[in-house]
Amino acid sequence: MNDHPGAPPGSLEPRPFLHALLTAAIDAAAPDKVVPPHLPPPPRGRTIVIGAGKASAAMARAVESNWPGPVEGLVVTRYDHAVPCDRIEIVEAGHPVPDANGEAAARRILALARAAGPDDLVLCLISGGGSSLLSLPADGLTLDDKMAVNRALLDSGAAIAEMNTIRKHLSAIKGGRLAAATHPAKVRTLLISDVPGDDPSVIASGPTVADTSTAADARAILRRHGITVPPAVEAHLASDAAETPGPGDPHLATSNAVIVASPQASLEAAAAVARARGVNALILGDAIEGEAREVGRVMAGIALSVRKHGHPASPPAVLLSGGETTVTIRERGRHRGRGGRNTEFLAGLAVQLNGEAGITALAADTDGIDGSEDNAGAIVTPDTLSRAREAGIDIRTALDRNDVYPVFAAIGDIVHTGPTLTNVNDFRAILVM
Amino acid sequence: MNDHPGAPPGSLEPRPFLHALLTAAIDAAAPDKVVPPHLPPPPRGRTIVIGAGKASAAMARAVESNWPGPVEGLVVTRYDHAVPCDRIEIVEAGHPVPDANGEAAARRILALARAAGPDDLVLCLISGGGSSLLSLPADGLTLDDKMAVNRALLDSGAAIAEMNTIRKHLSAIKGGRLAAATHPAKVRTLLISDVPGDDPSVIASGPTVADTSTAADARAILRRHGITVPPAVEAHLASDAAETPGPGDPHLATSNAVIVASPQASLEAAAAVARARGVNALILGDAIEGEAREVGRVMAGIALSVRKHGHPASPPAVLLSGGETTVTIRERGRHRGRGGRNTEFLAGLAVQLNGEAGITALAADTDGIDGSEDNAGAIVTPDTLSRAREAGIDIRTALDRNDVYPVFAAIGDIVHTGPTLTNVNDFRAILVM
Repeated sequence: MNDHPGAPPGSLEPRPFLHALLTAAIDAAAPDKVVPPHLPPPPRGRTIVIGAGKASAAMARAVESNWPGPVEGLVVTRYDHAVPCDRIEIVEAGHPVPDANGEAAARRILALARAAGPDDLVLCLISGGGSSLLSLPADGLTLDDKMAVNRALLDSGAAIAEMNTIRKHLSAIKGGRLAAATHPAKVRTLLISDVPGDDPSVIASGPTVADTSTAADARAILRRHGITVPPAVEAHLASDAAETPGPGDPHLATSNAVIVASPQASLEAAAAVARARGVNALILGDAIEGEAREVGRVMAGIALSVRKHGHPASPPAVLLSGGETTVTIRERGRHRGRGGRNTEFLAGLAVQLNGEAGITALAADTDGIDGSEDNAGAIVTPDTLSRAREAGIDIRTALDRNDVYPVFAAIGDIVHTGPTLTNVNDFRAILVM
Repeated sequence: MNDHPGAPPGSLEPRPFLHALLTAAIDAAAPDKVVPPHLPPPPRGRTIVIGAGKASAAMARAVESNWPGPVEGLVVTRYDHAVPCDRIEIVEAGHPVPDANGEAAARRILALARAAGPDDLVLCLISGGGSSLLSLPADGLTLDDKMAVNRALLDSGAAIAEMNTIRKHLSAIKGGRLAAATHPAKVRTLLISDVPGDDPSVIASGPTVADTSTAADARAILRRHGITVPPAVEAHLASDAAETPGPGDPHLATSNAVIVASPQASLEAAAAVARARGVNALILGDAIEGEAREVGRVMAGIALSVRKHGHPASPPAVLLSGGETTVTIRERGRHRGRGGRNTEFLAGLAVQLNGEAGITALAADTDGIDGSEDNAGAIVTPDTLSRAREAGIDIRTALDRNDVYPVFAAIGDIVHTGPTLTNVNDFRAILVM
């Protein structure tokens, strides 16, 4: 894509350069590229594909297209995330709120796993969103029970890790149960990570991965936060049935998991493209969190330091980061702003940079959808603020209303990729010349 | 301070290491160290010392102690920031709200400047806080006029740079006027910078530095934000008397300014100490801004990346940064939380790190006072959260109440330096082993 290999950095065109980095990041997580190298040899028996997540249909197609023998199975993905498969059934279901389609699919997937024999291979394809999509209450509990617990958890101030501990102990599938059900068949899990730390037991609540927490931990969390749960839930958590398979559990001995795509791998792919063009690439982190606009302000401070002092990198340099920022809605009520966390990040960045020359940035969700609109992200240039002003828009006012999508739309700086059918969280690149 | 030069990094003791870095950063901005190398040769005539700022008394003493001939003058500093001087008079005044002491001192300083002859040298010692301390309305305006304008500016949403443009055009001293009044005497200004970008025309509103803004700019800012000002102010801004000396103004031809201490220089001094001990030092920026706790979250993400991926630096590494974060008070009303922006930063950092091993951090205000208490800052260790919990304190609840000083006090992790009589803003160091 670069017509002038070896050209001096001064000839860098920021926009195509940043788009090339985004493309490299998404390609490094594309199921058709990352799944095939991790496929095991075919088994003596059947090959059964199961899975859940926003990327699961695309992962299933990648298996079908590259598998040397017969293959069958069922995966569940989010509405509008199916892709055509010939031999593996694709079901769509609700996300982020689980629905009956998801529960029915989860029940069928569990049955497929249980039916696998010792000579069979179960390929489990997991990606972000799988936890909602593969939601099946433990025997004796209902979806209503689980939703009541979820609401109580959200109100309790419990940490995410604590919530997940509770959820794993109320599920028929999460926390390693799916793999345990598959025993003695061999299970190979391919994971696309969208979580900070890339812990396989956290991605989609780890249906095929040993759980280090216990039912006693779950009970302690409820006590600590004073959470009241339905009687059926309390009874379940007090029973042996609540226990998940832990590390060393013999039912997991024939199961292994490999991460085939991650935020860090995508950032490293983008960094390689940058370096090939003579640009210093600095990966600041694959799991940067915080209020989106404030993350933008901090990154602006780092970019200004690159430009002024040559620290933490000498220009031309690109600052890369991933992770998932947060947007706190400011004005509640009738007006609902348009935009997502990447455009909020970029608006915060642009305001802090205040027109500084030589700094251009792109931020996008690698799944192709940033928040409320159909765009992946947007671009900031040194004249973003002045062009917005000429268009009659004050970006600070838009930020106050969580309504920055229209700013980038008005000045033609929206980035579209369409749904990418993968997800390694956000991608941010700030080029400093 | 290191008993084991050349010892392997594994033997690093995080607390003394981080304290050594803070000491290096403050020493690199200490008036008695940074002023002498920048003193010019004595003049044929008198040497007159003037100045304003939190460090001005300490700077005056450094001049006195190192000046080879007679010296006289007057500087104004903040209450409790005076140090004994023999020949230069020290006056204390109000900061951040100007008071009558400051106005009287400013009037006397302007008179000293005007009285300087062509053979005289005026040494002007400027540091942060000088703008409030050296507040003198232009002829025909009162302090009340200026304060009315200040209130209107704060309510208008005008940017800091816009406010400063207005202020310079209502002052008898700011925006280069003090140097112009000194002409034809030679003026040498020594500056300790506490502002992002280290622009001499911004530090203390640049009393001896050419002003690139005009009275017309000031009028345009008032119009743009629909700001109504007292009639005397309006009349003044429409008159030639409002114009400040700009670049190339002959009255500034005998004036020059040099920055003798800055956030970046202090960060580089700390980096040198770290590198001498075998620790990779990465300066992320000297002017990092943003909501303190969110800056802490972002920095935690970067530190976790160092630990997990060896990016943006390989451990052992220390992430250094400066600048001035912001604290937004959450709960208004009777309860007033205790703490400052550095402890808020550290609390946000600790929550995000969530006990991660091998990461220790120190943050402090280089002037020695972080917010409401008498401490410079505090320290975070991997067991900060657990020790706070054992002390019966939840750090998240404390953060919600902007009341994190008691957390660090309860676990004995407050950092005290006493007033340092200098100020190059905040200093943050995060050590990742």
